[in-house]
Amino acid sequence: MAEKRLGKIYGVGVGPGDPELITKKAERVLRECQVIGIPAASREECTAYQVAKRAVPEIGNKPVVAVPVPMTKDRQVRRQAYEEGSARLFEVLKEGRDIAFLNLGDPTVYGTYMELHDRLVREGCEAELVSGVPSFCAVAAQLGVALGSGRESILIQPGCYEKEDCAKTRILMKSGGKLSAVKQRLTAMEEAGEAKAWAVSNCGMPDQSVCRDIRLLDESAGYFTTIIVKEKGTGNGDGTVCE
Amino acid sequence: MAEKRLGKIYGVGVGPGDPELITKKAERVLRECQVIGIPAASREECTAYQVAKRAVPEIGNKPVVAVPVPMTKDRQVRRQAYEEGSARLFEVLKEGRDIAFLNLGDPTVYGTYMELHDRLVREGCEAELVSGVPSFCAVAAQLGVALGSGRESILIQPGCYEKEDCAKTRILMKSGGKLSAVKQRLTAMEEAGEAKAWAVSNCGMPDQSVCRDIRLLDESAGYFTTIIVKEKGTGNGDGTVCE
Repeated sequence: MAEKRLGKIYGVGVGPGDPELITKKAERVLRECQVIGIPAASREECTAYQVAKRAVPEIGNKPVVAVPVPMTKDRQVRRQAYEEGSARLFEVLKEGRDIAFLNLGDPTVYGTYMELHDRLVREGCEAELVSGVPSFCAVAAQLGVALGSGRESILIQPGCYEKEDCAKTRILMKSGGKLSAVKQRLTAMEEAGEAKAWAVSNCGMPDQSVCRDIRLLDESAGYFTTIIVKEKGTGNGDGTVCE
Repeated sequence: MAEKRLGKIYGVGVGPGDPELITKKAERVLRECQVIGIPAASREECTAYQVAKRAVPEIGNKPVVAVPVPMTKDRQVRRQAYEEGSARLFEVLKEGRDIAFLNLGDPTVYGTYMELHDRLVREGCEAELVSGVPSFCAVAAQLGVALGSGRESILIQPGCYEKEDCAKTRILMKSGGKLSAVKQRLTAMEEAGEAKAWAVSNCGMPDQSVCRDIRLLDESAGYFTTIIVKEKGTGNGDGTVCE
């Protein structure tokens, strides 16, 4: 007897709150998946679910897998919640059903899903991230304020206004003309074990190119190249990229 | 004779490139506006236009106002381009027509539109920002990498990997339990002329609240409060918030 196809899981950003700020892709994925995953104990307690339901009411008829992660600094407790949650999601995927796991805003910006994503990918599951509008963009729009312009940088901090010596992920945008210098610097940092860097040019466009080894970055990659640098100590929740 | 109603301008984020990553709101606004604004010399040269057209082909039939801003460090040249551009947009608005001005990604993240927005708002025009998925979120999704998790911060830099002493906008997320301390700190910074801060709680949700005077921030505003701090020297292009 043929083995059942494994289902696919999507980490779906539902945007900041206004149901009209959901993307067309998120809307489609919510319609197509048979099961909804939520980072909370119940539909009622889940803000992302409430937003998604206003955008796509039919998800109210779909079964939900609830993965509550306690807000605690105790890594062991969080880790156990992720383990149990990913095991339950895996059971659903083994039945061949697809899951849309909801995140308020964008899943890569402090989203609970990323930890589950890493575990399920390691288990051999097919998993895809569907970007959403992060809350801070909607906040800036509401206020009519630019988050960044010209040579300014933008620093996103969870919690409060504190020292800047915490681990940091850097996003280098529009590095176009300086790719050669940037590549040299990042290669040296990787060799010293201080960071891991990736780059994507023309993301989502027909001529997209993805570079997972910064030493091989095409220096002529052009203006729409974005580089992500995970510095020592950063990672997905309790895992780390380089230590 | 009654004066003609002024048109409204929308700064529309079209997302990072994949036409399916446009929001439902951006799609609607592109359909409803009679005129399209672009931050380039022509439709052909404008990446944001190409993305928008793949998402909403009918914009191909709408007239375009082109506002090319030269890539130069010469503030005077840039300022002149913004002045001329906003004057031309204003002419269209005076005819009672609405404009969707396109931005790749999100308009508040290094978007050309913000300068035009400020000028047109000063002229008394109605202007609204429509958030989009920033390119860096799509890049992280493509790579399967978290931009931030736990206590880490995220630093977005235009250009290259350089010193961190440039002017900075801070975004404080999930400050929930620490709002009292944050408010005290920011109030002191505002009084010293070092920064200007704003906050929005539950952005885009039915119970949204906007705080434009940080001294009046409700300390019980809760978990989904995002604070934006523009430090001395930051602003919209050639303008600055505090100096």
